[in-house]
Amino acid sequence: MKKIFFLLSLLPMMAAAQTVTSPDGNIALTFSIDEGRPTYAMNYKGKAVVLPSHLGLELAKDKHASKGMRETDLMDDFTIVDTQTSTFDETWRPVWGETETIRNHYNELCVTLQQQKNIVMPPPANPDVRGRGVETRVRKMIIRFRVYDDGIGLRYEFPQQDELNYFLIKEEHTEFAMTGDHTAWWLPGDYDTQEQVTQETRLSEIRGRFREAVNWGNSSVAVFSETGVQTALQMRTDDGLYINIHEAACLDYATMHLELVDQQTTSLTTKLMGGSNAYTPNPTPSSYPLPKPFTFVSHLTPDATGLKGAMQTPCHTPWRTVMVSDDARDMLSSNLILNLNEPCKIEDTSWIHPTKYCGVWWEMIVGKSSWNYTDEFPSVKLDQIDWSHVKPNGRHAANNEKVRRYIDFAAKNGLDEVLVEGWNVGWEDWANLWKRDVFDFVTPYPDFDLKALNDYAHQKGVRLMMHHETSSSTQNYERHLENALQLMNRYGYDAVKTGYVGDIIPRGDHHYSQSMNNHYAYVIQQAARHHVMVNSHEATRPTGLCRTYPNLVGGESARGTEYEAFGGSRPDHTCILPFTRLQGGPMDYTPGIFETKLSTWSDNPSWARITIAGSLALYLTMYSPLQMAADLPENYERFDDAFQFIRDVAVDWSDSKYLEASPADYITVARKAKGTDNWFVGGKCDENGHVAVVRLDFLDKGRKYECTLYADAKDAHYETNPKAYQITKKTVKRGDVLKIKEAPGGGFAMSLFAK
Amino acid sequence: MKKIFFLLSLLPMMAAAQTVTSPDGNIALTFSIDEGRPTYAMNYKGKAVVLPSHLGLELAKDKHASKGMRETDLMDDFTIVDTQTSTFDETWRPVWGETETIRNHYNELCVTLQQQKNIVMPPPANPDVRGRGVETRVRKMIIRFRVYDDGIGLRYEFPQQDELNYFLIKEEHTEFAMTGDHTAWWLPGDYDTQEQVTQETRLSEIRGRFREAVNWGNSSVAVFSETGVQTALQMRTDDGLYINIHEAACLDYATMHLELVDQQTTSLTTKLMGGSNAYTPNPTPSSYPLPKPFTFVSHLTPDATGLKGAMQTPCHTPWRTVMVSDDARDMLSSNLILNLNEPCKIEDTSWIHPTKYCGVWWEMIVGKSSWNYTDEFPSVKLDQIDWSHVKPNGRHAANNEKVRRYIDFAAKNGLDEVLVEGWNVGWEDWANLWKRDVFDFVTPYPDFDLKALNDYAHQKGVRLMMHHETSSSTQNYERHLENALQLMNRYGYDAVKTGYVGDIIPRGDHHYSQSMNNHYAYVIQQAARHHVMVNSHEATRPTGLCRTYPNLVGGESARGTEYEAFGGSRPDHTCILPFTRLQGGPMDYTPGIFETKLSTWSDNPSWARITIAGSLALYLTMYSPLQMAADLPENYERFDDAFQFIRDVAVDWSDSKYLEASPADYITVARKAKGTDNWFVGGKCDENGHVAVVRLDFLDKGRKYECTLYADAKDAHYETNPKAYQITKKTVKRGDVLKIKEAPGGGFAMSLFAK
Repeated sequence: MKKIFFLLSLLPMMAAAQTVTSPDGNIALTFSIDEGRPTYAMNYKGKAVVLPSHLGLELAKDKHASKGMRETDLMDDFTIVDTQTSTFDETWRPVWGETETIRNHYNELCVTLQQQKNIVMPPPANPDVRGRGVETRVRKMIIRFRVYDDGIGLRYEFPQQDELNYFLIKEEHTEFAMTGDHTAWWLPGDYDTQEQVTQETRLSEIRGRFREAVNWGNSSVAVFSETGVQTALQMRTDDGLYINIHEAACLDYATMHLELVDQQTTSLTTKLMGGSNAYTPNPTPSSYPLPKPFTFVSHLTPDATGLKGAMQTPCHTPWRTVMVSDDARDMLSSNLILNLNEPCKIEDTSWIHPTKYCGVWWEMIVGKSSWNYTDEFPSVKLDQIDWSHVKPNGRHAANNEKVRRYIDFAAKNGLDEVLVEGWNVGWEDWANLWKRDVFDFVTPYPDFDLKALNDYAHQKGVRLMMHHETSSSTQNYERHLENALQLMNRYGYDAVKTGYVGDIIPRGDHHYSQSMNNHYAYVIQQAARHHVMVNSHEATRPTGLCRTYPNLVGGESARGTEYEAFGGSRPDHTCILPFTRLQGGPMDYTPGIFETKLSTWSDNPSWARITIAGSLALYLTMYSPLQMAADLPENYERFDDAFQFIRDVAVDWSDSKYLEASPADYITVARKAKGTDNWFVGGKCDENGHVAVVRLDFLDKGRKYECTLYADAKDAHYETNPKAYQITKKTVKRGDVLKIKEAPGGGFAMSLFAK
Repeated sequence: MKKIFFLLSLLPMMAAAQTVTSPDGNIALTFSIDEGRPTYAMNYKGKAVVLPSHLGLELAKDKHASKGMRETDLMDDFTIVDTQTSTFDETWRPVWGETETIRNHYNELCVTLQQQKNIVMPPPANPDVRGRGVETRVRKMIIRFRVYDDGIGLRYEFPQQDELNYFLIKEEHTEFAMTGDHTAWWLPGDYDTQEQVTQETRLSEIRGRFREAVNWGNSSVAVFSETGVQTALQMRTDDGLYINIHEAACLDYATMHLELVDQQTTSLTTKLMGGSNAYTPNPTPSSYPLPKPFTFVSHLTPDATGLKGAMQTPCHTPWRTVMVSDDARDMLSSNLILNLNEPCKIEDTSWIHPTKYCGVWWEMIVGKSSWNYTDEFPSVKLDQIDWSHVKPNGRHAANNEKVRRYIDFAAKNGLDEVLVEGWNVGWEDWANLWKRDVFDFVTPYPDFDLKALNDYAHQKGVRLMMHHETSSSTQNYERHLENALQLMNRYGYDAVKTGYVGDIIPRGDHHYSQSMNNHYAYVIQQAARHHVMVNSHEATRPTGLCRTYPNLVGGESARGTEYEAFGGSRPDHTCILPFTRLQGGPMDYTPGIFETKLSTWSDNPSWARITIAGSLALYLTMYSPLQMAADLPENYERFDDAFQFIRDVAVDWSDSKYLEASPADYITVARKAKGTDNWFVGGKCDENGHVAVVRLDFLDKGRKYECTLYADAKDAHYETNPKAYQITKKTVKRGDVLKIKEAPGGGFAMSLFAK
């Protein structure tokens, strides 16, 4: 191998800079070598989006890594030995999605780099043997760029080679140099959670806002820098460009955060700032020069020893993505993240289906009922309790009677499944106690008749949805996983909601580390073997893996509806999430809270910051193949005419049109239900209200549609009058223009049934 | 609970000191409270063995642990609230062992302690609410002592209580204050390995010898203190007492090391000294006063964050043991460690059987053959290789032809099983590369016909023994374990040799941590479900768990015979191990190297430091229900008359008599084969030779025995003439006295068949 490299290095040097443009010519990506360091820049319609930015990886010094790689970084001393450009254009059909087909069209630039380093060898142990003094090491690294009309992806590829078979990553140094002090919608960078309130500030204001932005009270928190932020990071430039940085296809690699270099940055972060899970030591700081202010630098989630990843060639990193447009709607309709993921690896996908569901859940979140069956024990050891003789606390929600009521409700209203949380033993002391053997995932509480309830549900055409809270004790979950999946197959469950509340066990690991990302993928793959769909809560943020594993039908990884019971989220929250969290895949946001004032039926003083019409809009604006009707059946029964929309709305689409969008302001979208000619339109706005202008240009020409509009009443307001809505029906046709007033914190939903 | 404690604290204080003696009265254990700290001392025949020594645990400050325990140590402020003494006398039958029955006879002292602490509360958040200022917290801890004729055990017990439901251990502070500068046989304290050469020094010399004693080149090393040593630690006092410190029944708790306080100690260790696996940060140093020099203090193996354990009450620590006698033979015949373990938890033990085996192993250790099948790849990904099209390296030992030869050899010589290492794919790049998915434990190399070879073996009355090298990637092993055990059941394997070479994956964990100890136990338990016996290599050191799980038939956890191929072990090595490593359970030492000069059949310049007669002795002096005939069949065929002893020798015993013993000098033992009237006697000595005096007092009166003696020839010497042995036969009877000369590094073996 060394010889081959040597010959290559004699070839004439390639041209100094390579440029590749998007199919429509709007985006230009330029690659060059800057004093030995790989460098890229990105333009959109002639405007700079990413200024020249370095690429590279710093490797860890480790005795084991030294076998075959000799502890030198992949940062500098590079020359270009080959470049290849190509074009790809393919249209594929997702198992479920916002559109029936997705076009994957890009121009690619693949740069093969060679690094030649002269290594000063240690003196030989035997003084009689002459040392070679300096040894020359040659290694190869590929950087691949894909340039789409709506953005770019780039990744590092590491071919198998004698000088690079295994390596440990100290840090990835992918830079994104911004052109100015953009407005950003950001979450504090955290190794364990994204359940935070999005901040809207200038880049220069991140540091000052950071500490108050952290959700210190979350069940697992580890923040690493006062300018650390998460992805997908949505920005807007002063001259009207929308820029979004994220990643795609993160498999067996640590989740990437971004650390902003600002005027106060003196070195890239080397130790954890704080949080419940801030055990991890970071390695020594990087010795490479700091980039200029307004540059984001990648920051990977560490393992318990502070290192960022263990790699074996041939391998590659996930894609690092930059989306750009001068139209905010393009941020929402983009399929760039999905396109950069591998095609579906599940051969038979017939068992995967979009799902509308309700569940025994909200009443525990609100605090009226309990997951646990008893209050008798200060702590519980699963194998030492005869549950049939335990004194019940009278508040356990997952009981036969209640679950039957939910099954009846689902059957009556055309919901596919009923989630039941708290069905299995172990909830008495489940969270954040460093308890490893917290659940066994197969033993029901005595008041939950596993067989009878599933039989009852199946008779009514409904399935129960499984719940596996792991309490972040992943070793315990993996030990029980096969049995738990077999139990699901035995009783006819085809979907599981998994949960990762609390700090990861084993201690020192983080929710977003390489090993945890591998764990989530393992669970998805094992579930697929058993024909089980997965909806992961508190797991890593998604990066489009649902293309490859479409049984990953949902996830959380953001502040969901549950926070409406924990003090509330801001009204604009759901007008931001589609720009950020949803870039990587659908969210199980659990919308549909009709009784926004929780104190009407519980002791919880919180209230949901949304109108009922706004709640209905979320079934469209927050795209997901998995949609919950999260409120209690009795609350839906009180507003049955509004609930009609939830009964009607589809969860899978042949087409989607984003009609209006402005981050944290409003989103309006029209979607065509798959396999029908019916459309549904939804609009959601922030605390300021909005007038949506819906041009029905997408309807079939010459056809009439029965339009039902669920709108905020005139005096509706998320704070003072959230339950005031108006339902109107009329016949509409293509070309009609509807102006719909959305109340502060409100929205609207509309069904358009083709006649 | 608090109220109850309050009432108890009003009871009259218990007597200042409690004493309990051994059933024979020789050992006296005294417990007292020394300025609030629990304290014990131990005497033997009126001589001090352990001077007054403190007991206690320092707890970690952790937000999660604070639920119910409030972050205060369990070190001081204790009073005695109850003491109970009792006597226990029971005889039990081990599934396999050195004797047919074992007497478990002790006097017990159980002390219930109460700790009352005044906690200064933080000021309340609301200044209108009056803070309580100081709050009183009351907790209970039990210390249980068991006093045997041959030593003591003590452990901490933590009842379930409101103020102590969960806690994290920062360090256990169990002290063992020695009376002087004893001679000790010690290994450097290491979180990952015991494959070291035993050092014989005074206690005061440990620090000076420490660095050269570390096996820095081992595949996983983490040393923590220049006075850190491992257990079982054997000592001898100047006035002739033998003292041995170890632990019993270590389950779901970190393995204990000992740190000696000497004249130079300024504080107990707070950071790792070095080694390949020295990633772990330790928490801040203890603030408790240092004990006096010559005191050992417990030092637990940390997790990746430096903490020592996560506990949930009710729970207890392992037993900390101190054995004592003025007769060295008592150290070897003691059953104290086994007796302190729980009775057998496996109901049906009929499938567990002592085993004599050979294996495809030594030729790879020596370096003549390879575990891996090919040299074609710089690295391997299991799922990406079509093994049937891979170019073999021609050195792969686990091939059909060779395995058949070993099966034939086993069948011909009455060996029960044949171990085959290197049968499964993945050995191309298996060790210390931080590779997680290193083996799948079910896919054979193309030249190993799983079904045909097992069928062939079974036809000949032999079984194959499974091999699972995990490469210390424990998550990977647990993921595959069930499938691997099912494969074993399918093909008729009933025993597995497991291996844990290299640093633990996930990084930062150690071989002897709580989580790893839990892993080993998990594997033993899962194997038992499948009726599989386990022999763990590179695992944690044993603490008698084979009583509770008798399918744990062997282990390594010391420098085994393999080191004879890595430069050699000292001749006295096997005269020390029974005093140290074997206290916790049998070792798969893999004895029986007849061709001691490896260069006669390989390129390996090493040579085994033992005579052939000495090798035969090991089948008796190194007790194990699992005994290998480790050399190649062709080497045994060259010395078939000596090999007759290996054919003859039993591996399970109804009685054992230690006839002579001196640590690192010599050991002579007689054992009666279970279910027969035959005896076997073995003697092994160090580099100085020895004349064993064997009084045949143990034979049946009036009965004659056919005695075959395998002795070193007159001029035998482990270095210059190791293969010189003499076989003599004669008839003997009870009362005869045999004087047998053992050569330097030699020994003898003797069979006594009842006529």
